[in-house]
Amino acid sequence: MEEAKKKFLIVVTHGPEDIDRTYAPLFMASIAASMELDTSVFYMIKGPLLLSKSWQEEARKKGDNPFIRFFDLAKENGVKMYVCVQSLKDMCHMREDEIVDGVEIVGGSTLIDLTMEAERSLFF
Amino acid sequence: MEEAKKKFLIVVTHGPEDIDRTYAPLFMASIAASMELDTSVFYMIKGPLLLSKSWQEEARKKGDNPFIRFFDLAKENGVKMYVCVQSLKDMCHMREDEIVDGVEIVGGSTLIDLTMEAERSLFF
Amino acid sequence: MEEAKKKFLIVVTHGPEDIDRTYAPLFMASIAASMELDTSVFYMIKGPLLLSKSWQEEARKKGDNPFIRFFDLAKENGVKMYVCVQSLKDMCHMREDEIVDGVEIVGGSTLIDLTMEAERSLFF
Repeated sequence: MEEAKKKFLIVVTHGPEDIDRTYAPLFMASIAASMELDTSVFYMIKGPLLLSKSWQEEARKKGDNPFIRFFDLAKENGVKMYVCVQSLKDMCHMREDEIVDGVEIVGGSTLIDLTMEAERSLFF
Repeated sequence: MEEAKKKFLIVVTHGPEDIDRTYAPLFMASIAASMELDTSVFYMIKGPLLLSKSWQEEARKKGDNPFIRFFDLAKENGVKMYVCVQSLKDMCHMREDEIVDGVEIVGGSTLIDLTMEAERSLFF
Repeated sequence: MEEAKKKFLIVVTHGPEDIDRTYAPLFMASIAASMELDTSVFYMIKGPLLLSKSWQEEARKKGDNPFIRFFDLAKENGVKMYVCVQSLKDMCHMREDEIVDGVEIVGGSTLIDLTMEAERSLFF
């Protein structure tokens, strides 16, 4: 039986208003996943805006968006994605169906669970 | 004899200049406390401005301030509050007697102690 | 044989654009070092700009820069300094030879290693 991988969490609180603070975390997520860590990213505060279908579509059309590049890389590397439903609705004024596929919509208490389960967490 | 609760720390570095970054942490503090974690919030950098008697009074008069709502909820849920005296004085230019009741005024070294004692810490 | 010191990590993501968010972390680094913790600071995102030879030179000429004061204090207290090469080049558009002496230039994966080795990490 294989030994369970250690868990690693990265919290993203910024969104398109400060794109420089969004792609380094996703780059770190890919690195962590490549180091055999079971890696998750949790989006909250302004982070959910990065998961908007329409925002991602537009960013992909314009091209050369570093967040999109590292988001796709993280997905390819098996990084799990979670978004805080309270931030999504109350802070970003989005609906759940506006979120791209492959992201689990969870309550704030999941952040506590994820940090308790993770070996280490990074905050951005 | 009851088992000691695990400790959980939340660090708040933003203040009224970016109110969106201040109430999610307080909401998380209430959630952590409701999950039977011995929860503390540590205010530093711009965070002490949120603890100003006059700022809170004005925010309460205006009403519907999300920080105030989650601050009160956290207090009701038994969350402990600490403020960094160096941030308070040197960065926020406040006096100790301008801080609302129920907040312990401590030196920066307390942050190290709190993080060492806490099972996990969140940074905002 | 002496017991190995516990490791402590502080991550700096802001630079001269928000100097208030840069010196509290360095102050905390000195406190941690004085508490017998083997303390490191990791600069990423906008943090590498604080390590620019020309920026530090100018800041020293102008005088009374709190980041410089706490940077020097941290160095005196034996705090180790690391800078993320990807942030340095791709985000701050700097060359490696523009960084002040005494800072180790490392890849992003070093951040994962440092957080895994550290007893605790602070994020600013």
